[in-house]
Amino acid sequence: MLEQLKEEVLAANLALSKHHLVTFTWGNVSTVDRERGVIVIKPSGVEYDVMTAEDMVVVDLASGKVVEGNKKPSSDTPTHLELYRQFEHIGGIVHTHSRHATVWAQAQRDLAAFGTTHGDYFYGSIPCTRLMKDAEIEGEYELETGKVIVETFRERGIDPMQVPAVLVASHGPFAWGKDADNAVHNAVVLEEIAYMNLFSLQVNPQLGAMQQSLLDKHYLRKHGKNAYYGQ
Amino acid sequence: MLEQLKEEVLAANLALSKHHLVTFTWGNVSTVDRERGVIVIKPSGVEYDVMTAEDMVVVDLASGKVVEGNKKPSSDTPTHLELYRQFEHIGGIVHTHSRHATVWAQAQRDLAAFGTTHGDYFYGSIPCTRLMKDAEIEGEYELETGKVIVETFRERGIDPMQVPAVLVASHGPFAWGKDADNAVHNAVVLEEIAYMNLFSLQVNPQLGAMQQSLLDKHYLRKHGKNAYYGQ
Amino acid sequence: MLEQLKEEVLAANLALSKHHLVTFTWGNVSTVDRERGVIVIKPSGVEYDVMTAEDMVVVDLASGKVVEGNKKPSSDTPTHLELYRQFEHIGGIVHTHSRHATVWAQAQRDLAAFGTTHGDYFYGSIPCTRLMKDAEIEGEYELETGKVIVETFRERGIDPMQVPAVLVASHGPFAWGKDADNAVHNAVVLEEIAYMNLFSLQVNPQLGAMQQSLLDKHYLRKHGKNAYYGQ
Amino acid sequence: MLEQLKEEVLAANLALSKHHLVTFTWGNVSTVDRERGVIVIKPSGVEYDVMTAEDMVVVDLASGKVVEGNKKPSSDTPTHLELYRQFEHIGGIVHTHSRHATVWAQAQRDLAAFGTTHGDYFYGSIPCTRLMKDAEIEGEYELETGKVIVETFRERGIDPMQVPAVLVASHGPFAWGKDADNAVHNAVVLEEIAYMNLFSLQVNPQLGAMQQSLLDKHYLRKHGKNAYYGQ
Repeated sequence: MLEQLKEEVLAANLALSKHHLVTFTWGNVSTVDRERGVIVIKPSGVEYDVMTAEDMVVVDLASGKVVEGNKKPSSDTPTHLELYRQFEHIGGIVHTHSRHATVWAQAQRDLAAFGTTHGDYFYGSIPCTRLMKDAEIEGEYELETGKVIVETFRERGIDPMQVPAVLVASHGPFAWGKDADNAVHNAVVLEEIAYMNLFSLQVNPQLGAMQQSLLDKHYLRKHGKNAYYGQ
Repeated sequence: MLEQLKEEVLAANLALSKHHLVTFTWGNVSTVDRERGVIVIKPSGVEYDVMTAEDMVVVDLASGKVVEGNKKPSSDTPTHLELYRQFEHIGGIVHTHSRHATVWAQAQRDLAAFGTTHGDYFYGSIPCTRLMKDAEIEGEYELETGKVIVETFRERGIDPMQVPAVLVASHGPFAWGKDADNAVHNAVVLEEIAYMNLFSLQVNPQLGAMQQSLLDKHYLRKHGKNAYYGQ
Repeated sequence: MLEQLKEEVLAANLALSKHHLVTFTWGNVSTVDRERGVIVIKPSGVEYDVMTAEDMVVVDLASGKVVEGNKKPSSDTPTHLELYRQFEHIGGIVHTHSRHATVWAQAQRDLAAFGTTHGDYFYGSIPCTRLMKDAEIEGEYELETGKVIVETFRERGIDPMQVPAVLVASHGPFAWGKDADNAVHNAVVLEEIAYMNLFSLQVNPQLGAMQQSLLDKHYLRKHGKNAYYGQ
Repeated sequence: MLEQLKEEVLAANLALSKHHLVTFTWGNVSTVDRERGVIVIKPSGVEYDVMTAEDMVVVDLASGKVVEGNKKPSSDTPTHLELYRQFEHIGGIVHTHSRHATVWAQAQRDLAAFGTTHGDYFYGSIPCTRLMKDAEIEGEYELETGKVIVETFRERGIDPMQVPAVLVASHGPFAWGKDADNAVHNAVVLEEIAYMNLFSLQVNPQLGAMQQSLLDKHYLRKHGKNAYYGQ
């Protein structure tokens, strides 16, 4: 069972590379097995072209201790763990420094919904977190990164299942989904949106969020009980 | 006969991917057989790399009912049908979320003719539709999308054979042509124009439409009875 | 002998595609045999992936008549011929609609020398032509295009061997060189410069031309009798 | 021993091409053997696809004379030599005209640290040199280029091991590292940062440097005695 999750996490990490979302080892994907209380995550700093399923690291969801694997887990593991603990319906998480999502994270700006590409996947603005405090950065930094993401969703009343991505200010994006593959999918969409929003605003600097009715239509025709898109 | 159309529609869908106009399944191509009164269109939400000619769906032009095929047709089928009904000389339609055409659609701006690349294929501005009304969005949305496209061409007196593309506001582009392959061709050109216009305006913010005489020259040397381009 | 030139012109046309300077058939390359008084040029509207050396067309330099080949030459042939007649030291010509050079041509702006990439190949600004007059466009348009290019260099006192490229306003770039291969090389450099200038100006809107001493240094270390670059 | 260094330098040069940092022969990589007092560097103007390890040139660090090899070394060799002499801990140097780093070099602007991608590799702004004086350009230009780089780091109190790259005004980037491979790595990161900073500033024109505490955290978790990133 864990072997299958390791294969899925490996495949999802390689998909990041195929979709041009990562340079070198700048990305990581994990998945969770909530019954066993563990996550499976990419090892730290291992090249994609030599990575094997055996390199994936199994980490205890509650304690953060390595349960299986002979490599160190991604240094971002505490961020992943916090998101799995607080966002209880998510099954996979992706972190990248993909170019355009990172552009917006560095610029410390939300990604407003400007069109149906956005609305097909994200039900409203993709938020950018506040800057982290010095004490958070100097403390358990990676855990605190997770906490500031959770705070962003809670304080702004955003459902993480309806907006499955965030921009961490001065850093880059995290995306998630029902499993590792779906999290990669959302990370790809996020990058497309980030690209298109950048230039849509240059063509029309007064551009505001799309009509609510159109956002409702597109999001709800693909998600929820009345969805009619796909087979 | 329909088998050949299915092959053509499959090939045209795959060409979208080859020309980098689609991410995941975000595009669809159809063609029409006006004698039989049917269209052949891509199925909804099927990955390009597993799609076969058999997956293509045959839909009745008048009623919109599936005539042949065991998959659901693209959710945008009612838009395609309306365009075939109202633009009686077109033979193929393409819809994509290609990056730069979508940038302009999101920005709700027409694409003016800035140069001969445009003039070789489009005889004047490529229009952006008005925003749809809430009642249109909440009603038969995909059919209404087709209607607002047709309205745009009728009210502005644009011949859809001379300007074979449109930007749907807050959504993305549709392009068409004499057959599916030609529609893909026009979608590729549209994307090139959308890219170049974006940056031409940044280099020269006062830039207006090209000279009418130059537009005439380029459009008419490739189209119409005095064309002299090609073999 | 002409067979070898046909192979060279074919190879140069295919190199345009390899360097991502053309979409579809939007480019053409020619070379000249000044002893025989002929040029060899790409046929009009033939796809790159089916083109053979036999498809290349031999055209008389003085009369513009086809001397050999069973296809129509590129519709831009009269422009090539005029450049070969007036710029007597050039041996190959390339025309493309490459994205960023076309951006500047559409914007009707010269490409100033902003750095050593430019200075290694072009000894000063790459000029953009004036707009063509209606009578020129409605007359022998392609020939007149050549004439306006020549006028641009003559009136501004630019040596076409030192600045081997031009932007034709509202159209796109032409580049040339000592042979077809060198012309392609210059077309690639032009595209790089056009890309970098676009964004250099965005980072520093007050940016002016580079120091003359640096331009001299870079141009002259690669060209002329004191060149010391390369083997 | 030198054979191994030649292989490393060849591999690093080819890696520039693989990472899309070079057009034609516009890049060069070298490494140093400080015990023997020599550097190994790419030959001048040789195409990447025909280059072999035997083509690499061995040059004396002190005198700049060719010690081994039957080709001329890169024309930028005196710049490399000066950097190795003055920055005594570096083991490899890369020079490219990569698009976005060159955009900033042409624009004559430093690259401020806007996010953690930057902070993971560069401990503060990547400086742009002052313009060179005419006398420097007209004298031993390539040597003077090295001197102005060294001056930039000395006058601004920047440690070249903590900020392993520079933008040479009106020219392009140099990057370095502990060996040739690491220098290429830093050149790739520099290009990513240059791309992202360009557009982060467009999204947020008031954007300033990232928090010092976050820069400290990211730089120091990967470098120095308390590093905890990687295996």
